[in-house]
Amino acid sequence: MNIKQLAATIYQKRSFLCVGLDTDPDKLPAGFANTAQDIIRFNKEMIEATLDHAVAYKINTAFYEAMGIKGWQIMEETLAAIPDTHFSIADAKRGDIGNTAAQYARTFFETYPFDSVTVAPYMGKDSIQPFLDYTDKTTIVLGLTSNKGADDFERLQLTGGQQLYEKVLTTVAGWGSPDNLMFVVGATQAAALQNIRKLIPEHFLLVPGVGAQGGTVEEVAAAGWAPNCGLLINVSRGVIYASKEDDYLQAARLAAKGYQEQMASAFK
Amino acid sequence: MNIKQLAATIYQKRSFLCVGLDTDPDKLPAGFANTAQDIIRFNKEMIEATLDHAVAYKINTAFYEAMGIKGWQIMEETLAAIPDTHFSIADAKRGDIGNTAAQYARTFFETYPFDSVTVAPYMGKDSIQPFLDYTDKTTIVLGLTSNKGADDFERLQLTGGQQLYEKVLTTVAGWGSPDNLMFVVGATQAAALQNIRKLIPEHFLLVPGVGAQGGTVEEVAAAGWAPNCGLLINVSRGVIYASKEDDYLQAARLAAKGYQEQMASAFK
Repeated sequence: MNIKQLAATIYQKRSFLCVGLDTDPDKLPAGFANTAQDIIRFNKEMIEATLDHAVAYKINTAFYEAMGIKGWQIMEETLAAIPDTHFSIADAKRGDIGNTAAQYARTFFETYPFDSVTVAPYMGKDSIQPFLDYTDKTTIVLGLTSNKGADDFERLQLTGGQQLYEKVLTTVAGWGSPDNLMFVVGATQAAALQNIRKLIPEHFLLVPGVGAQGGTVEEVAAAGWAPNCGLLINVSRGVIYASKEDDYLQAARLAAKGYQEQMASAFK
Repeated sequence: MNIKQLAATIYQKRSFLCVGLDTDPDKLPAGFANTAQDIIRFNKEMIEATLDHAVAYKINTAFYEAMGIKGWQIMEETLAAIPDTHFSIADAKRGDIGNTAAQYARTFFETYPFDSVTVAPYMGKDSIQPFLDYTDKTTIVLGLTSNKGADDFERLQLTGGQQLYEKVLTTVAGWGSPDNLMFVVGATQAAALQNIRKLIPEHFLLVPGVGAQGGTVEEVAAAGWAPNCGLLINVSRGVIYASKEDDYLQAARLAAKGYQEQMASAFK
């Protein structure tokens, strides 16, 4: 699925919910063991439970890598369980020199056929170009992140008036197009979102940080809306760990439904 | 192995050569197939051939990830083949919010017990701290990289006089110590190395970009030397692909020996 197809799906479902599959074996409901089989089962159940209300799934690769080879097996089967009707994201935040970046692009666009992957901007154009070279895929570059550490470097003031993240957004926007390039902007940065929309009026924003990290759908939608919606809000813990009891599936479905209803009211 | 032990080894061997195992299945010598078994054999032979002249091995995770699960099996066995007498580096350039960064730290310090891992600075302190929390391990943060794209963001001028990479070096240096924290500085940035040494006089620098990318040992040693040597120069393609013919092992050994001899003359 590409960005245009995603935008159509968003309007059809009146939802821009992305469910984050940051599956931590230590946080599974009772009855699940720390085995590949059980973790795959949990992920598949979560996908099924939220399918009606979500338009995308984001796999945070760190949680899978930490399990070693077992984790990559789980990631592979989880990706295969995401239907073509939904947009898939490898949240991998890779970034390296050109020939190495090409290997990472191959990893997340071919070896594991995700629709999109998150990429770090620090090393500049030749670290991002190999991802953009896959023109039917989507590259998602870090802009202004949701964590406290965003103040350390992303918000540094440059000579010429911009902060670093603003320079990253406007520079990288020139390397791709709104059809193959998105940016990560944290929901906790709602005050900056209006400004970001002025800088990059057409690009989709992948917005983590709603729920556990403190941002709200309403704030993000008010400040970040674009003509094509242009928003994808990710919720991980608030959906997949909505309950650890026997009702974990119903709780996840209800949480996703709740977010979708908040999102629906943003459509005019 | 920690940084102090590495420094002692460097003085003993009069070498600060790190061999980069960026093993690309398409570039193996004749007689090697694209199988886990053959790639592991190649890596083991390369380690054995260069052991006398190198003090460290760097595994570029991208090349292994691109192979899928097979790649992680190869990485695991390759890491196991690096003896305790040598410093091991996971060149992974990870970076994410705190709870995710903790998963990456676990991946490369526990699941795969490397001595060190490379980390990207863009997201700030809480993306780096979980690595530094492993006080017996080494965190290697990107400073000024060897690629052309380093000009895009790393060299941006900040208000207050510093360039971004200078701010990164001086800020991150305050989060760790010369005993558990290194920085990546490209060999192609030799002109900046003298300045970097003034900013961070005691930290080890991991210096890629000698050989295929164009930097020289002499330039790097002249500009980057610290009281404890403080340098680790990585060569990947210049050693492991020194020959694709039957003499590939001898060629790799000779290439490593050549670099070691250049390095020896830097010791007073």
